[in-house]
Amino acid sequence: MNFASDNNSGVCPEVIAGITEEASRFDAAYGADQRSIELSVAMAEVFDREVDVYCVPTGTAANSLSLAAVNPGWGAVLCPEHSHILVDECAAPTVIGAGLSLLPLESEHGKLTRPIVEAYLAARHDTGVHSVALTSLSVAQVTETGTRYSPDELAELADLAHSHDMALHMDGARFANAVASSGSTPSELTWRAGVDIMSFGATKGGALGAEAIVVFDPSRVRDDIERLRKRTGHLLSKQRFMAAQFVSWLGDGTWLTLADHANQMAARLADELRRSGIDLSHPVDANMIFAWLDPATTESLRAAGARFYQDNPVRRTDGTAEARLVTSWSTTTEDVDRFAAIVSGR
Amino acid sequence: MNFASDNNSGVCPEVIAGITEEASRFDAAYGADQRSIELSVAMAEVFDREVDVYCVPTGTAANSLSLAAVNPGWGAVLCPEHSHILVDECAAPTVIGAGLSLLPLESEHGKLTRPIVEAYLAARHDTGVHSVALTSLSVAQVTETGTRYSPDELAELADLAHSHDMALHMDGARFANAVASSGSTPSELTWRAGVDIMSFGATKGGALGAEAIVVFDPSRVRDDIERLRKRTGHLLSKQRFMAAQFVSWLGDGTWLTLADHANQMAARLADELRRSGIDLSHPVDANMIFAWLDPATTESLRAAGARFYQDNPVRRTDGTAEARLVTSWSTTTEDVDRFAAIVSGR
Amino acid sequence: MNFASDNNSGVCPEVIAGITEEASRFDAAYGADQRSIELSVAMAEVFDREVDVYCVPTGTAANSLSLAAVNPGWGAVLCPEHSHILVDECAAPTVIGAGLSLLPLESEHGKLTRPIVEAYLAARHDTGVHSVALTSLSVAQVTETGTRYSPDELAELADLAHSHDMALHMDGARFANAVASSGSTPSELTWRAGVDIMSFGATKGGALGAEAIVVFDPSRVRDDIERLRKRTGHLLSKQRFMAAQFVSWLGDGTWLTLADHANQMAARLADELRRSGIDLSHPVDANMIFAWLDPATTESLRAAGARFYQDNPVRRTDGTAEARLVTSWSTTTEDVDRFAAIVSGR
Amino acid sequence: MNFASDNNSGVCPEVIAGITEEASRFDAAYGADQRSIELSVAMAEVFDREVDVYCVPTGTAANSLSLAAVNPGWGAVLCPEHSHILVDECAAPTVIGAGLSLLPLESEHGKLTRPIVEAYLAARHDTGVHSVALTSLSVAQVTETGTRYSPDELAELADLAHSHDMALHMDGARFANAVASSGSTPSELTWRAGVDIMSFGATKGGALGAEAIVVFDPSRVRDDIERLRKRTGHLLSKQRFMAAQFVSWLGDGTWLTLADHANQMAARLADELRRSGIDLSHPVDANMIFAWLDPATTESLRAAGARFYQDNPVRRTDGTAEARLVTSWSTTTEDVDRFAAIVSGR
Repeated sequence: MNFASDNNSGVCPEVIAGITEEASRFDAAYGADQRSIELSVAMAEVFDREVDVYCVPTGTAANSLSLAAVNPGWGAVLCPEHSHILVDECAAPTVIGAGLSLLPLESEHGKLTRPIVEAYLAARHDTGVHSVALTSLSVAQVTETGTRYSPDELAELADLAHSHDMALHMDGARFANAVASSGSTPSELTWRAGVDIMSFGATKGGALGAEAIVVFDPSRVRDDIERLRKRTGHLLSKQRFMAAQFVSWLGDGTWLTLADHANQMAARLADELRRSGIDLSHPVDANMIFAWLDPATTESLRAAGARFYQDNPVRRTDGTAEARLVTSWSTTTEDVDRFAAIVSGR
Repeated sequence: MNFASDNNSGVCPEVIAGITEEASRFDAAYGADQRSIELSVAMAEVFDREVDVYCVPTGTAANSLSLAAVNPGWGAVLCPEHSHILVDECAAPTVIGAGLSLLPLESEHGKLTRPIVEAYLAARHDTGVHSVALTSLSVAQVTETGTRYSPDELAELADLAHSHDMALHMDGARFANAVASSGSTPSELTWRAGVDIMSFGATKGGALGAEAIVVFDPSRVRDDIERLRKRTGHLLSKQRFMAAQFVSWLGDGTWLTLADHANQMAARLADELRRSGIDLSHPVDANMIFAWLDPATTESLRAAGARFYQDNPVRRTDGTAEARLVTSWSTTTEDVDRFAAIVSGR
Repeated sequence: MNFASDNNSGVCPEVIAGITEEASRFDAAYGADQRSIELSVAMAEVFDREVDVYCVPTGTAANSLSLAAVNPGWGAVLCPEHSHILVDECAAPTVIGAGLSLLPLESEHGKLTRPIVEAYLAARHDTGVHSVALTSLSVAQVTETGTRYSPDELAELADLAHSHDMALHMDGARFANAVASSGSTPSELTWRAGVDIMSFGATKGGALGAEAIVVFDPSRVRDDIERLRKRTGHLLSKQRFMAAQFVSWLGDGTWLTLADHANQMAARLADELRRSGIDLSHPVDANMIFAWLDPATTESLRAAGARFYQDNPVRRTDGTAEARLVTSWSTTTEDVDRFAAIVSGR
Repeated sequence: MNFASDNNSGVCPEVIAGITEEASRFDAAYGADQRSIELSVAMAEVFDREVDVYCVPTGTAANSLSLAAVNPGWGAVLCPEHSHILVDECAAPTVIGAGLSLLPLESEHGKLTRPIVEAYLAARHDTGVHSVALTSLSVAQVTETGTRYSPDELAELADLAHSHDMALHMDGARFANAVASSGSTPSELTWRAGVDIMSFGATKGGALGAEAIVVFDPSRVRDDIERLRKRTGHLLSKQRFMAAQFVSWLGDGTWLTLADHANQMAARLADELRRSGIDLSHPVDANMIFAWLDPATTESLRAAGARFYQDNPVRRTDGTAEARLVTSWSTTTEDVDRFAAIVSGR
């Protein structure tokens, strides 16, 4: 019963097959290989157009290099106050982004909204060279709280960003879950809505370690992504094995099948928890649930071997504390039902 | 006939097996997993003592983080003029090392020697705060030219370094080849000789992408390696798969078996080339050969599909140019013999 | 009628005399001079003990180098949301501090309080290597809103900081004004209260360009300040002229005489404004006033040549907007009275 | 008898007068002042055209920001092996330049030549993303060894640089001495010869602390110099006092009068030394002499209070060691003659 994170899951069979097949081949290092070419083709199919793709081994690298690509060091990225880039990456976007600033905004269930950003812009006094310049908005899809932006919500933010000469970056560590749970295509959730650059993650969705920087608007890119990737140590010699992971994962829609499974497991668990009267903090749009559990329940779950995080230091007056439950491509119905049974006291 | 680089090879069956076995498991992210514990044990066996180990996905990351760990930003690393850290990593050690300087020294077949370093130290005028401080020596084992330091040669450099309050760093991207071709143990080639920190590479030796920072003298470490690794994007969520690669590769001496094979392939090829009257630039201590080939031979080799680098822009008056030939765990006798046959004109 | 900032003032006669006297001398460059020795003595008298002093030409440099000295790059500085280091230095503390983070807290009239900091600490979930480490508190004395911490208030913050292994940094760009308006000595307002390191500014108080990093607790210093100063370009060749400025300014209590004048001008102006029914945002503890002026008054003042900032983008429903009025060592009674007369409509 | 460096001199009366006159005025901070406007006019006169000017307090800041302006972080600057930017600034150009590399070339009496640069370019193997990109040449005028480039020599280097898409930077810490000793105008020695950006120093020539980044080709500027200057702490609040120094120093040709004096003092001293049979290392084109002194002479000079550097650690077989003797605007004929008399044994 591991609901700690989707990154606690293993590697899906399709990706293992892709790696294994590639293992016996020789090919050029550093991305000048066949699999990397195939990846470009696969990405173009996913997004209904050609895109620039740069694979890196971690989401932190993908986010940081994406942001470094579209922001000057004296720029600033507006992002939700609990966003991963701000609180979970030990300031990597700042380190890799030549001193880039991240500025926290309030959010609604983890989502930036046009009024929130507008209020911030209206209240800000620009002191020119003395202050950092606002150069990007960053959103996560799905968000840190498991919610999903609609294409229209993204377009509103993109319009606002672009009208202030800011780029729109998307942290897509769980983009697969967003696509799978929406009625929208990958292109509708990205460039058609105005997203300029994204970090597209496969790791949480079943890969071993493969994330892609996907550039939708090359005119927003200020720096040489290939050199930045190299000089931060993120160009793998056997780069083709990241391409192989992606190609296997994207092929035959595997990525969406797996994400859909994770989403359904979360929906099933959420339904059960609600039925048990458990309060959930946010809409369950994808594969994450934030549930308020009382100490006895928590203890029973832990005793049964359930793993999950309780990061929020706030405890309600009724004694409940917020647990984060994340499902993955490998979560089983059995584990969901067993967890739910313990919560319901059955 | 791919002799371009050992990083053009694939992934060895043992590592694939290790990854595959791990793929179906859940376990904690970011290194708090079983495989990472096993790796600590395996490394302790390799080095005859406990060591601190930090896995990262690339050799550039391993080198840069190792150097950042033992040098202040205002420090400088003395290294051979053609060393990988200096000319092949797009200044990554400087970027990750807070402005760390790398200072080139001459070398003998890619190796620093005590007289070379002493001459540099004697000729240098230290201007205090105006100049960077000499804080490390860095050597590669095996070197960029395929030569190997003996334990005594390393100890001489270590003594010199330590007597000047400098750390000794080893770039061990091909450390396996060094151990396999020497009569020495891993410990004799590292901490017993005075090496303080090393980058221990498995990727060129058969892994998918797994390098380890190995700390022998923690008292030399000035900074928090775990934070540095995280904030440069080199902590993988599925970190355990790097540990799994290493555990499989080190287990049962696979790493040395594979390295020995690569070395033997190089020895076989070198013998054949010498027999054909080809001039070699350096002793062939491991799996790299630098051979002076005439244009006709080069053309025949290329026509037959042979891959190798000719990076050295110098061409001799007899028309020959230097080719770098690298063998790997997956190089076959057939490819070696076929290459040699073309060179010999048979 | 220049109330824009105390840095719009010129250079006081005592400092000009000190520079002029030094001008005809030869002496060693880079701080190995007589004036720098005299400065150490003068600083020891000011603070009732020996301190380490490093002169730099700007407050931004003093703040950034101070913070870089006591924080690792993966650290974070808690500071009031409107503090100069956070909003007016274009992220210089981050750039100079190897990626150092600044985290905004609420404040009361620009001051951090123990409850504010405690609430932040209680609400924060430490995710270890994933988040930056809290390593400093930073306060300004006087604050950005012209208020002053008492020794007890500082001691409370220092105790809290130290109990969490955080350093306490003070931005003392207007420290002279704080000392002059308090009944406290420089030592009571700094190290006796627990301040570990400060930026002590002379520029706003009458110097041409001279700020000092003053270290009270050398055990908090993690890095080599002299090297950091040099490699960020802040070691002047004619460093002795910064020392000369400080020695002249500190001598005979000039700094406090000038600061007292500035404070009295502010008190006089504040009294007049209150008498005219003008609402002031904050207590006037030193040489800064934040006054809500209606549009007609503002226009009359501008027409009469008055200079002041209206940075706050908020306008009240009664039409008033907040003006920042800063007095200096060179502000005249005539200017104060003329300004007040316009406001009162006389 | 201070021949240690021209930065051991004081501040010339004209600059003191300029500072003093400005001291009693109020004016806007951060460069939005009258003196800064006057400086733009003065610089346009000096260079026979409009130029962009950014004052900073140190030569290290001027060099580092100039280089940061025209080079990407993944770029490299080719410079003479003993250049100030490489060996005397504690890697500041790297720190301020986002990891910028400096690559040493041989020189002839401190000067780069077209053949030296061409040989380097021919011998270099460009490995694309793995190596830093060559993006600038940097020369000092006058050089570290006191020699001067002619306009033709500069034009040769500029043509070579530009044909390889590299910028040409000039470290003009002693540019005044170069102009004064040549028959050339400032424009002939800079933009007319193809210099793209320079650090123009007044400090060594008689100012207190004033250096200017002068941009000749804005199309070479990749980054926002004003933001870089601010975020590295080099924008002074009383910026106008740097402008005042420059305006006073440039006015009525004071800068060239003072530099001419320094040059003549060096010429006089060089003549005397040669007459005494002292070997000089380099042509004396400006205000620096490198003279080989025997131990007895050195001791006599030291005993008489003479100050000079002997940085070169090499001692010749005849026992002589190289002394660097620098004259300045304030060097007196008496000091020169007294020094010469001791050397001659009179």
